[in-house]
Amino acid sequence: MNIGFIGLGNMGVGMARNLLRAGHSLTVYNRTRSRAESLVSEGARVAATPGEAARGEVVITMLADDAALEGVVFGEGGILATLVPGAIHISMSTVSVAIARRLAEAHAAKRQAFVSAPVLGRPEAAAAAKLIILAAGAEQDLARCKPLLDAMGQQTFVVAADAPAANVVKLCCNFLIASIIETLGESFALARKSGVPAQKLLEVLAGTPMTAPLVKTYGTIIAEENYSPAGFALRLGLKDVRLMLAASESAEAPLPIASLLRDHFLTALARGYGDLDWAAIAKVAAENAGLTPRS
Amino acid sequence: MNIGFIGLGNMGVGMARNLLRAGHSLTVYNRTRSRAESLVSEGARVAATPGEAARGEVVITMLADDAALEGVVFGEGGILATLVPGAIHISMSTVSVAIARRLAEAHAAKRQAFVSAPVLGRPEAAAAAKLIILAAGAEQDLARCKPLLDAMGQQTFVVAADAPAANVVKLCCNFLIASIIETLGESFALARKSGVPAQKLLEVLAGTPMTAPLVKTYGTIIAEENYSPAGFALRLGLKDVRLMLAASESAEAPLPIASLLRDHFLTALARGYGDLDWAAIAKVAAENAGLTPRS
Amino acid sequence: MNIGFIGLGNMGVGMARNLLRAGHSLTVYNRTRSRAESLVSEGARVAATPGEAARGEVVITMLADDAALEGVVFGEGGILATLVPGAIHISMSTVSVAIARRLAEAHAAKRQAFVSAPVLGRPEAAAAAKLIILAAGAEQDLARCKPLLDAMGQQTFVVAADAPAANVVKLCCNFLIASIIETLGESFALARKSGVPAQKLLEVLAGTPMTAPLVKTYGTIIAEENYSPAGFALRLGLKDVRLMLAASESAEAPLPIASLLRDHFLTALARGYGDLDWAAIAKVAAENAGLTPRS
Amino acid sequence: MNIGFIGLGNMGVGMARNLLRAGHSLTVYNRTRSRAESLVSEGARVAATPGEAARGEVVITMLADDAALEGVVFGEGGILATLVPGAIHISMSTVSVAIARRLAEAHAAKRQAFVSAPVLGRPEAAAAAKLIILAAGAEQDLARCKPLLDAMGQQTFVVAADAPAANVVKLCCNFLIASIIETLGESFALARKSGVPAQKLLEVLAGTPMTAPLVKTYGTIIAEENYSPAGFALRLGLKDVRLMLAASESAEAPLPIASLLRDHFLTALARGYGDLDWAAIAKVAAENAGLTPRS
Repeated sequence: MNIGFIGLGNMGVGMARNLLRAGHSLTVYNRTRSRAESLVSEGARVAATPGEAARGEVVITMLADDAALEGVVFGEGGILATLVPGAIHISMSTVSVAIARRLAEAHAAKRQAFVSAPVLGRPEAAAAAKLIILAAGAEQDLARCKPLLDAMGQQTFVVAADAPAANVVKLCCNFLIASIIETLGESFALARKSGVPAQKLLEVLAGTPMTAPLVKTYGTIIAEENYSPAGFALRLGLKDVRLMLAASESAEAPLPIASLLRDHFLTALARGYGDLDWAAIAKVAAENAGLTPRS
Repeated sequence: MNIGFIGLGNMGVGMARNLLRAGHSLTVYNRTRSRAESLVSEGARVAATPGEAARGEVVITMLADDAALEGVVFGEGGILATLVPGAIHISMSTVSVAIARRLAEAHAAKRQAFVSAPVLGRPEAAAAAKLIILAAGAEQDLARCKPLLDAMGQQTFVVAADAPAANVVKLCCNFLIASIIETLGESFALARKSGVPAQKLLEVLAGTPMTAPLVKTYGTIIAEENYSPAGFALRLGLKDVRLMLAASESAEAPLPIASLLRDHFLTALARGYGDLDWAAIAKVAAENAGLTPRS
Repeated sequence: MNIGFIGLGNMGVGMARNLLRAGHSLTVYNRTRSRAESLVSEGARVAATPGEAARGEVVITMLADDAALEGVVFGEGGILATLVPGAIHISMSTVSVAIARRLAEAHAAKRQAFVSAPVLGRPEAAAAAKLIILAAGAEQDLARCKPLLDAMGQQTFVVAADAPAANVVKLCCNFLIASIIETLGESFALARKSGVPAQKLLEVLAGTPMTAPLVKTYGTIIAEENYSPAGFALRLGLKDVRLMLAASESAEAPLPIASLLRDHFLTALARGYGDLDWAAIAKVAAENAGLTPRS
Repeated sequence: MNIGFIGLGNMGVGMARNLLRAGHSLTVYNRTRSRAESLVSEGARVAATPGEAARGEVVITMLADDAALEGVVFGEGGILATLVPGAIHISMSTVSVAIARRLAEAHAAKRQAFVSAPVLGRPEAAAAAKLIILAAGAEQDLARCKPLLDAMGQQTFVVAADAPAANVVKLCCNFLIASIIETLGESFALARKSGVPAQKLLEVLAGTPMTAPLVKTYGTIIAEENYSPAGFALRLGLKDVRLMLAASESAEAPLPIASLLRDHFLTALARGYGDLDWAAIAKVAAENAGLTPRS
């Protein structure tokens, strides 16, 4: 298929590469052009503007936040102005429910198709085509996207026909992870102050049938106080909590756990932990218990 | 082995039965005597007092709370007065860190051994000898208990030599579960108010590699609003949160998630949900979003 | 003085009238023109656009929120394009710290003066020229505004030379009030459930030297469950909490009390209390304690 | 009148002295006897046991906590065993609602009268007979106590016939103060991080008609970061928050603000601020915003 790909960050570069490997014809755009050029040797063409990458059957966006997405879609020479009727925009970034709603409406008005397909997984999963994809959109559009999604992920959940629903579900996933991290952080602080070895608590929490790989992943990071390099940076974690809170306001559904997370993320930022892994909110829990880092 | 077993509630009766099946000689005591007598046909003898059940090599307690445990140990004709030096008291109830500490000291003063071994699992797991056991105590005492623990559980984690450490870890496990339930409750409320089908959110949360059986268990209960009969009653959940907060105070380690849980459990009790499954704190999240139960 | 006044809501109309009474020449603008015309018989001229009201020495804005203020300042035919160098824009709305910063910079770039002067007080205080004004701006600009501020308020606090500082202080004032309301709501719920008459608790809280008129005002509303008509509508209260949270994010200073308020305001909205007095968050506290309204 | 006074801490010593000055005959008891002997030169007799101080018409207790009060009342040679039928026990300590209930019942069973009369005010107010007294009990008992309460306080609020009601109201007063302190702490942290001078925020918060002396008192302490010596020690503040939370549990009335205070007090203790003034929870708010103390 003739595809455009916009946004070649840590996630996007792996995803684009997997599309090339699957034999698709790819035009890529990135604000910092050098990152786009790195894919030329693998067969990609480089576009000078977002619109130039939106001349095929499908354009995929994988960007940092609402503002970046808004720019490439609504800006001059952007996707909205270029994409032909019937072609599809697949938005795979973690962005707000509100912008997904706005995109769905804007594309519909121009008879362009829109699929919202945010992903679960870290950069290694993107590189290995192991992402979990949460897709929402019209049935026939999802069917057309399927080979592309299959080339980038290990599993696609079809969430709903209403595109923004995928964004709600994506935010709920990250909310669950963040809440588990916070709970682990508080638990490890209590354990340390009660004289229980962190490794022992980890062994139990990560070793029982009730737990999940993510309890093991984050429990290990916290027990070992090993927050750098970041798998997912703390300041991005705060962004997701903010999106969750924005969704909460629109829906008039309070989220006290998210509020609490927000405040702990802010403390973490204020203390200079913004570039550590987001599991470093456990440092806040530890410091609130009067603990100092093990060196 | 010659064993006493005190406390034949929903959990205790299954545990005692598994010890009988493993060929141990059992003397049982329960405040309501009729529950003890139900085991006579399976070979148990019935004791008239807690002390009478504490004349063997080991006495196991599986009671509702600190007060009940305090009564059978320190009361007149209780375990402390009867247990012979060298014999072991295995406390398997979910009780406070403070009382575990107090028991460890009281037994040591009388040269009796003390093992703290709280369990993870519901009544069905107790009946099926599938409990997860978190044990702490002196190495030689744990070695002596091993065949008994193996008869009751599928796996035993040795937590520490210091007995109360097992109680800290047990409380952390329940804390993680309760926190996940609360997070799920908030997420499902948001999803419903955002027009996302609960079943779809459940499918994703329970279907990705990051999740655990417990996300599936509780997500299903919440998505189906199926809170009765209770697997674990909400008022018992509050008890555990209270124990966690008590541990937090002793350790001077704040637990904001537990504080938030406490307040939501209290609202649930005030609204008459005390006998529902503890997943019914999700009803509080739903009601706080202005939702009414699906009938 | 030759003054423009933009925004004739419940607050603005009283403020404009007091300027007319003090002998100033007033050109008024309101989106709904009829509200502007009501002041013609008192000597005001009506402008057709915001810019038309910004041709004098001073233009005052008193608008509902950031978006409205942004529109009249930056929109086509707006204040920024019209105000002559040296003339002053006095922004008296309760708006975000961020927009105050943006206005300060935009006006400076055009050599226009900018004073931020949000107010404390309800519509009756605006009508009676009894507002408390929190003013920030360059010393000479504040001096020029003084006769106008004196015509509208009973007292002006000069906060700082940096205009947005006045907005921070204003938000802190409302934050204190909202936090006292929430605390009163929780206290009255506890008292009722403990069998203590609400009137008795009110008598003590409002009768000791430590308390303030506001404890009496809001305590009375809550004790009597008298939330309508609203002195200050609950949905506006949420707006202010949002502004406070936005300031908190920019400053990287967590505000857990504000987070908690946000969630309770959302529950109140979700339950249909948006048009009641903001003291109605006490209804949420009461309902969370399982209480039903006294009819 | 012939009075016993038990508990000569910083508060009790001033209260006892005011009773002596008013011409009453006083028998005093204190666990550390030397503090009792300091009042001999002013006319007091010293009792060797609590019971010995409970032989007159009235015995007043002013003790540190529930445990101390329980000891002098229920212990061997205690008040309950000694007080003659018809004589009155006035409990003026800040203790739990539950123990007030228990005392009311125990005294009633022995036909002794019981008045619960906790106080508002710091040691200087106790010394100057300026306490605010919150009294609850049977009308005729309160009438008999009146001259004594008048000798110790500037004002007495009669709360209810049911003695524990006074304790509920007392806890609500401290809850309001603590909540205002926390809110001030968060506000000053935000102001500092936003570049607003603390003194300016203080001037506004303490200078408007809406505010109270206590906003001025605590705002000044926080703005000046002047937490030592303590007027009311932080660890005592936590005690009061705990009592409030215990009342909340009994009443099934959640108190999220109190939960939040609990966690911040614990952090303060964990960081070694237990002996500072309780306004030092503002240090936690400041540190959570990444601020360091001004030296």
